[in-house]
Amino acid sequence: MSQTLRSRTYEFLEPQGSDDQLAVWFDRFMIFLIVSNVIAITLESVQKIHDTYQSFFNGFELISIIFFSAEYIARVWSAPETPNRSYKAPLTGRLKYIFSPLALVDLAAILPFFLTFFFVIDLRFMRVFRLLRLFKLTRYSPALATVGAVLMEQRRQLGAALVIMLTLLVFSSSVAYLLEKDAQPEHFASIPQSMWWAMATLTTVGFGDVTPITALGKVFGAFLMVMGVGMYALPAGILATGFAREFKKREFTVTWKMVASVPAFANLDAVTIAEISGALKPSLIPAHYTIVKRGEVAEAMYFIAEGEVEVDLHPIPIHLVQGDFFGEMALIFKRPRLATVTATTDCHLLMLEREDFDDLMDDHPDLRTHIEETANKRLHEIELLGNLT
Amino acid sequence: MSQTLRSRTYEFLEPQGSDDQLAVWFDRFMIFLIVSNVIAITLESVQKIHDTYQSFFNGFELISIIFFSAEYIARVWSAPETPNRSYKAPLTGRLKYIFSPLALVDLAAILPFFLTFFFVIDLRFMRVFRLLRLFKLTRYSPALATVGAVLMEQRRQLGAALVIMLTLLVFSSSVAYLLEKDAQPEHFASIPQSMWWAMATLTTVGFGDVTPITALGKVFGAFLMVMGVGMYALPAGILATGFAREFKKREFTVTWKMVASVPAFANLDAVTIAEISGALKPSLIPAHYTIVKRGEVAEAMYFIAEGEVEVDLHPIPIHLVQGDFFGEMALIFKRPRLATVTATTDCHLLMLEREDFDDLMDDHPDLRTHIEETANKRLHEIELLGNLT
Amino acid sequence: MSQTLRSRTYEFLEPQGSDDQLAVWFDRFMIFLIVSNVIAITLESVQKIHDTYQSFFNGFELISIIFFSAEYIARVWSAPETPNRSYKAPLTGRLKYIFSPLALVDLAAILPFFLTFFFVIDLRFMRVFRLLRLFKLTRYSPALATVGAVLMEQRRQLGAALVIMLTLLVFSSSVAYLLEKDAQPEHFASIPQSMWWAMATLTTVGFGDVTPITALGKVFGAFLMVMGVGMYALPAGILATGFAREFKKREFTVTWKMVASVPAFANLDAVTIAEISGALKPSLIPAHYTIVKRGEVAEAMYFIAEGEVEVDLHPIPIHLVQGDFFGEMALIFKRPRLATVTATTDCHLLMLEREDFDDLMDDHPDLRTHIEETANKRLHEIELLGNLT
Amino acid sequence: MSQTLRSRTYEFLEPQGSDDQLAVWFDRFMIFLIVSNVIAITLESVQKIHDTYQSFFNGFELISIIFFSAEYIARVWSAPETPNRSYKAPLTGRLKYIFSPLALVDLAAILPFFLTFFFVIDLRFMRVFRLLRLFKLTRYSPALATVGAVLMEQRRQLGAALVIMLTLLVFSSSVAYLLEKDAQPEHFASIPQSMWWAMATLTTVGFGDVTPITALGKVFGAFLMVMGVGMYALPAGILATGFAREFKKREFTVTWKMVASVPAFANLDAVTIAEISGALKPSLIPAHYTIVKRGEVAEAMYFIAEGEVEVDLHPIPIHLVQGDFFGEMALIFKRPRLATVTATTDCHLLMLEREDFDDLMDDHPDLRTHIEETANKRLHEIELLGNLT
Repeated sequence: MSQTLRSRTYEFLEPQGSDDQLAVWFDRFMIFLIVSNVIAITLESVQKIHDTYQSFFNGFELISIIFFSAEYIARVWSAPETPNRSYKAPLTGRLKYIFSPLALVDLAAILPFFLTFFFVIDLRFMRVFRLLRLFKLTRYSPALATVGAVLMEQRRQLGAALVIMLTLLVFSSSVAYLLEKDAQPEHFASIPQSMWWAMATLTTVGFGDVTPITALGKVFGAFLMVMGVGMYALPAGILATGFAREFKKREFTVTWKMVASVPAFANLDAVTIAEISGALKPSLIPAHYTIVKRGEVAEAMYFIAEGEVEVDLHPIPIHLVQGDFFGEMALIFKRPRLATVTATTDCHLLMLEREDFDDLMDDHPDLRTHIEETANKRLHEIELLGNLT
Repeated sequence: MSQTLRSRTYEFLEPQGSDDQLAVWFDRFMIFLIVSNVIAITLESVQKIHDTYQSFFNGFELISIIFFSAEYIARVWSAPETPNRSYKAPLTGRLKYIFSPLALVDLAAILPFFLTFFFVIDLRFMRVFRLLRLFKLTRYSPALATVGAVLMEQRRQLGAALVIMLTLLVFSSSVAYLLEKDAQPEHFASIPQSMWWAMATLTTVGFGDVTPITALGKVFGAFLMVMGVGMYALPAGILATGFAREFKKREFTVTWKMVASVPAFANLDAVTIAEISGALKPSLIPAHYTIVKRGEVAEAMYFIAEGEVEVDLHPIPIHLVQGDFFGEMALIFKRPRLATVTATTDCHLLMLEREDFDDLMDDHPDLRTHIEETANKRLHEIELLGNLT
Repeated sequence: MSQTLRSRTYEFLEPQGSDDQLAVWFDRFMIFLIVSNVIAITLESVQKIHDTYQSFFNGFELISIIFFSAEYIARVWSAPETPNRSYKAPLTGRLKYIFSPLALVDLAAILPFFLTFFFVIDLRFMRVFRLLRLFKLTRYSPALATVGAVLMEQRRQLGAALVIMLTLLVFSSSVAYLLEKDAQPEHFASIPQSMWWAMATLTTVGFGDVTPITALGKVFGAFLMVMGVGMYALPAGILATGFAREFKKREFTVTWKMVASVPAFANLDAVTIAEISGALKPSLIPAHYTIVKRGEVAEAMYFIAEGEVEVDLHPIPIHLVQGDFFGEMALIFKRPRLATVTATTDCHLLMLEREDFDDLMDDHPDLRTHIEETANKRLHEIELLGNLT
Repeated sequence: MSQTLRSRTYEFLEPQGSDDQLAVWFDRFMIFLIVSNVIAITLESVQKIHDTYQSFFNGFELISIIFFSAEYIARVWSAPETPNRSYKAPLTGRLKYIFSPLALVDLAAILPFFLTFFFVIDLRFMRVFRLLRLFKLTRYSPALATVGAVLMEQRRQLGAALVIMLTLLVFSSSVAYLLEKDAQPEHFASIPQSMWWAMATLTTVGFGDVTPITALGKVFGAFLMVMGVGMYALPAGILATGFAREFKKREFTVTWKMVASVPAFANLDAVTIAEISGALKPSLIPAHYTIVKRGEVAEAMYFIAEGEVEVDLHPIPIHLVQGDFFGEMALIFKRPRLATVTATTDCHLLMLEREDFDDLMDDHPDLRTHIEETANKRLHEIELLGNLT
């Protein structure tokens, strides 16, 4: 398919796993620019720094605005290239894009600047609004994108937790109001005002700017602390579970790509690769770390997805690199480790545990043949070298 | 069965999953009325708001009382319709209902109003008591009903945690009393008084209104902080586990109903539907989200329980709606995704993962036939359209 | 075996699951006495209560001392009855018992009283020491006994967590000392003194009586907060896991006893009862709760370990009591629930889920026969009554 | 292999599981010396202690420096003995070692002392720097080594959590700045300054030295508390999971060694030992604890890895020691426990649960033979003694 400038622009802005190095560097530059902006705006809020480096900040702001505006215009212009029917029409497609959440964030990043030409706005206020650029990171940071996904996925449970928490809040602040309103009218004059203390107690923040002083108020406060510890931990548990699931999902995708890049697995169909990926455990080994020790019980074999290891054989150690594997001999011949293997660079290994190895070999005879051939060749080499006497 | 007015009233008040739209709207109205009441009472506790809008609040209170009283009378009157023997007798059945927890909450919501006719009560105090209406929500909010179920289910573990926490509290407040009573007689004059500080420390609330000042007191305080972090987290863990289990149970019920509404499953018996429901993972997809991408590894098939998706085929994309399914071809023919599928509206999908799919097909040959036929028909269509060249 | 007075005393004090009602009431009385003592001592520490009710407290103390002393003497006297060789010898066995942890706690509960005859001791101090009686509860409260078991079981993990926490504490208090000692010599004059703030920050208690005031101190404080949230949550996680495991173990024992009391299981060997117990899920159902509803999908059958249920059949509902079971018909005939079952009293049910039911029936043909016979008889009765037309 | 002094020095310093008692005591001495140093430096920071015991501290410091320096020189000298190619060359190998993390920590422990000869440095500052010796513990404490391993392993998840937390921090401190800067210019004068309050709120530390005073500020503060409880608990969850996994891994290694030391397992191959190790649950039993009670349902058999137990048979109880096993008869003959077994010393038992026992016996007929023979012999003995009448 011949590419127009618009489609090339679109692919540059939304690389989606392509290998375009320029697009990768553009992404990095954008992250750098956003983070610099956030730091600059944060520092600028310090009066002294603002006064001293005002011209620098103004210059940086101008450059940023130019980049962000250019990016925004390019995104809107290339929006009809989105691989989704409803964006196809030049006008309505672009309008649709403009009102999509990510595009609104992009607009919010530049709008305050342009508004100052038309309206008289408090500048200090305006400056802080620029911090909305922070949310541009959602496009680039998988971590922040995860937050959104988790909140969406767990929204029903989080909603239930919220109802519970709100009910507890209303209940506790009205009881606190009843108990303390006469003793401390300045802090518990109304139920909404009592909520400040109730929240600080239920979340265990406990600022201490407001505390009950009546005996009954303290007893109720102690009760609230315990309720808070129990009930306000609910969202933490829901979110932790959600993130754990999301992280696992992401790890799977990364592993899948690594498995597909190991030569031994080159000819396997996608379903089998997915099966192996599920069984492999990724493992980051720092340089100089001993991965397996001679004589140890063998619990796994390893694939090298990245980096280099040294197999400590006498007289000449063997070096294995990306795409090689090791540790299979001890699994195949059911004996202790024959050699010590040490990482010479930081390594990204894929660990296949003994049980999974046995299952995989049973299901895929050609994979077994390939691995056993390599193992026999190596065993032969090792015996020649006299390492096993 | 011919329905009396009483039985119709009962079914209106306790719809129990029927399709009566009016009953659904009555439920929504009651929730709205209760929440409005809670907000009104909360705001009314602010002196200024109370003074300004007094007549509005009084009117709203009167209307609310009329509704709640009517509801209460209707509920008591129709109580003998409860599908439970012991409520059958007109008098004792109604008395029994009146003393059931939910009915007592309903009574508590209106009683304060009527009591003011007979007794002279502090009005401000009375007003807050109306907040008991908050608990009427238990009848309508699944989240609050869950709290009760979880507390009931985990009551033995929570009781054990409570004993541990109380013992730790008595122990720590008496040691604190011994260590600090001479240095700070105003805060640690007795063991009960020392409990306030001990609770704030053990729950990690840490108001700071009372802190130990002797060296030994601080050492003991540091010890308590660590004990508190460990021991007072127990109920949080118990409740989190309980809620997770309860949420899972509820999700199952929702899924079961959705599975039963998918035509492909129409002829299955209830046990098999339960089996499939257990295997399906519900998934809420926002509009314009890409569900599967052409060329990706297939990990699941999807059923549409609600909403509409677009299968991105050239030249004419296919639209699938509630009751349709997709993604089964990649699973059946063990190949990457043949087409990209995007949600056109917010969708409620049911995801059947590869392993579960294979198991299900093995166990239910007619389901396999039905799905394979659809798959073959679709593959044929796609090949005709030249999408797979 | 003929029983001496000593062995009868021993069995009275250590009933170990026997049915001796008197021993059960003695246990309850001791728990009541200990709790009363703890409450009395706690209240007595309030000067005004102490002054007003002095004679009452003195009397109560005297009575308590008499009971606790009598109990202690009886326990020491009957110690040689302990079913353990090393306690057999009259003298050394008793000495050995006297120095066992539980006996030392018993001694500590009465010693302070007797010491006052020989030494001049500050009475207020002495009074608080009586609170050691609190730990006598360990003998009677399963919850407190669990704490000990969990701490013992997880001691290696807890020890590791403690080393990590102590290292972090030393590190953070010395950095805080370096950063803040010149600005706040009154709070950060030495490393030990800085530990108070460091602990309050790491445990997220945050009293706020001491806070960093230098810019670097605040940055370090912010870092500590995050470290604390992560690292000081370790023991909470370890303890929560430990308690969950311990509670599960205890539940199993309770269930085992209940299963053994169900007539249908009377002739099974112990191993099979253990197997069934592992599969059964205990479930506490409050009175008037609907357990199964006619027409619902059947997911489990139920055994009644305690309480009574009503099967809602026309014209005459059936009542089932302890030892009966229900819900098996829907499982056996694979059809929706035939009748609604409601609890008439608070019930302790044992739920056997469908999968476990099928497994169990496959493994134990006589149990299947017994249950199927009952099911057929019931189905016949129901059909006679016309409930299934 | 004949050992040079250098290789003997190396093995002394890095014993790696050898049995050299002297090396073990050297390790203990080093731990003692480091801990003493940490305590001494901590105490020395107290002005009064420092002034009183100055000469003692100086002497102790001199002795410590001599030991640490000697250790450092010996480690550098023997570095080429490291079983890793890249350390082999006398000069570059040693240089490489000198720049390894653990060696840098060792250097940091002594460098401050020697620097004082060449530079004029604030002595109080210098003294605290000596606390870097604390990190020498990483070499000796498995707990601290675990921290490093967990942080390395979970670094991607922790990184994601950090990005989320930082984004939330920047967002919340800038909103707080906007809302509070006019009301409290002394606390919220800039975004960086507002971060102090935002951190204290998000981590639920809540010092209370700064609190919002405007109504909107308080509402936003309440929102932040809830966000903090949810989001700042993420690293706690990630770390807890990581530690749990790491502890499990370590436990496995310890168990493996214990299993290999049980005579019954002497002839099994390494893979089977690993299999059994995975199934065994280690259990620490204090002296005088009853392990199994006569008549109880048998759920497991036990191997003694350390300690001694007494089997309570009449007339002569049997004593079992390290390497023996018990409790297998109840599992083999499927009957309740035949005898009570009590620990006479603190015991390290390995528990093999019933299901795992059955599996293991099925897979390894010779192990079954060995255990059944012992069981039959014992049953015979017991019957002879009349214990089963």
